[in-house]
Amino acid sequence: MPHRSKPLSDPLFNKIALIGIGLIGSSLARVVRREKLAGHIAISTRSAATLKRAEELRLGDSYFVDPGDAVRGADLIIISVPVGSSGEVAQAIAPALKPGAILTDVGSTKRSVIAQVEPHVPEGVHFIPGHPLAGTEKSGPDAGFADLFENRWCIFTPLPGTDTEALERLSEFWRRCGSNIDTMDAEHHDMVLAIVSHLPHIIAYNIVGTADDLQAVTKTEVIKYSASGFRDFTRLAASDPTMWRDVCLHNRDAILEMLARFSEDLSSLQRAIRWGDGDKLFDLFTRTRAIRRSIIEAGQEIDAPDFGRQAVEHPQGLDQVKKS
Amino acid sequence: MPHRSKPLSDPLFNKIALIGIGLIGSSLARVVRREKLAGHIAISTRSAATLKRAEELRLGDSYFVDPGDAVRGADLIIISVPVGSSGEVAQAIAPALKPGAILTDVGSTKRSVIAQVEPHVPEGVHFIPGHPLAGTEKSGPDAGFADLFENRWCIFTPLPGTDTEALERLSEFWRRCGSNIDTMDAEHHDMVLAIVSHLPHIIAYNIVGTADDLQAVTKTEVIKYSASGFRDFTRLAASDPTMWRDVCLHNRDAILEMLARFSEDLSSLQRAIRWGDGDKLFDLFTRTRAIRRSIIEAGQEIDAPDFGRQAVEHPQGLDQVKKS
Repeated sequence: MPHRSKPLSDPLFNKIALIGIGLIGSSLARVVRREKLAGHIAISTRSAATLKRAEELRLGDSYFVDPGDAVRGADLIIISVPVGSSGEVAQAIAPALKPGAILTDVGSTKRSVIAQVEPHVPEGVHFIPGHPLAGTEKSGPDAGFADLFENRWCIFTPLPGTDTEALERLSEFWRRCGSNIDTMDAEHHDMVLAIVSHLPHIIAYNIVGTADDLQAVTKTEVIKYSASGFRDFTRLAASDPTMWRDVCLHNRDAILEMLARFSEDLSSLQRAIRWGDGDKLFDLFTRTRAIRRSIIEAGQEIDAPDFGRQAVEHPQGLDQVKKS
Repeated sequence: MPHRSKPLSDPLFNKIALIGIGLIGSSLARVVRREKLAGHIAISTRSAATLKRAEELRLGDSYFVDPGDAVRGADLIIISVPVGSSGEVAQAIAPALKPGAILTDVGSTKRSVIAQVEPHVPEGVHFIPGHPLAGTEKSGPDAGFADLFENRWCIFTPLPGTDTEALERLSEFWRRCGSNIDTMDAEHHDMVLAIVSHLPHIIAYNIVGTADDLQAVTKTEVIKYSASGFRDFTRLAASDPTMWRDVCLHNRDAILEMLARFSEDLSSLQRAIRWGDGDKLFDLFTRTRAIRRSIIEAGQEIDAPDFGRQAVEHPQGLDQVKKS
């Protein structure tokens, strides 16, 4: 952790500008308010209806359709839009950015965001690409909540020569949002995310699509009997389509690499099923069990059976579920 | 629903024999006790250690390593073992089955179980293959709970000439366990389950295996960052390896058919990513969203974001999560 050249004052920032007010942006607005991380929250989003909704929810202190108006005088600017729109936003806000301001984003791909944003960043503005690994299958300003980042990781992919004080100030911001901080290069980030996030979403979308297309099994049957496994995939497959289209288009190489490995492994598994190789199946099915245990131990998953759904359906049984 | 030839008395059965006392068997034991569905619960399992554990948990009234001893005098026998062991169990209990008794099972594949069990069933015993679509990723007698079957479907695949009174008595049993009843032929069952349950488990096992094999991304990274999607797959991939090996070996044809369709669709999706076909991606990602909504409306999934994990982690926020 870098040496702090001066103590970090409260609030951390005089004015924060949130560009995009969907699940992530609106969760940030809520936690910034709760933790008093900024003196003023300016909000901008392209859609007038969404901006109005953000205002009804009292998520900020000022509201703008033009992102350039929102960032004026801000000392922290967070871009929370589908990654394919990053360049456009950067271009729109660049002339209004204050010297010394920190500019960051929350995009799920980092090489592409850097390529889109960096050319527009004025001298004296600290651009620090970031990615909080947090989200749900819901989207829009109503879906956000202040606890979203609690105990989740926020990854920075700083460019060479990044100002250490700015990086520390941004890290402190995310820590106060509840997150743990990691730093890596953008290329490695994109590879890691391809396997832990992008491939799972693509596979989930694909299997739900396959089921939807069947004729021998009706859609009603798929829905009725989904609790036997299928429904687990539908959560990721209900994620925001625009966000995920952009992720697929902007992390293409790493995703194609992971898809190739997945398909190769699936062919091998398919062959074991066709030829009745029970030992091979048993070995794989045993090995995969340990990973869930490690994820639970790392505090990234709950131990309650069935994702704890039962606790939500039968709250009176919550104590029992938590114990297990 | 068949006409009831006589009122169903309480308890429904004088003596129930549970062969196998894992997640399903032990959940049955608990709900049978709670709902007073039997005068006596006899339990048998192959492993002496598991049998001892069942006794410590007071799941039954009598305990036997030999399943033949457990079924003597029972008027309902439920086989809850990995499907590959069904024939062996049927052979062992056949000589001790009481005329007029109902013999059923809970196996995830039905054509194979029928082929294994039917040849051993004595004249006068009602064999009714069944499959409660319920379970969690946990296994063993400690993992069971009485609510497991609540609002889940139980599918029967009755053989031609099945006694309607026996079928109605077994249906009433499962209804009192909390389940809804459906009936279909075994071949259709195996096709339906291949898509709603078997393919999802195989895909989950496969993707967790792929992640485990990577070298460019470490296992520590996969675990740390799993909340961004990957962890959803680890639940199914933590299911009982013996059970799932048997399912793969005993529903081979339907599983291979579904795997072929899945892979075909995945190739097409992969091509769209490679060639930057954003519209195609957006269309698929939009279509799949509707299915989750239908599953929630059908009461087979909860509406809380993130499977309601947040409610289990932060019980004080439960009301808020349930509202959303």
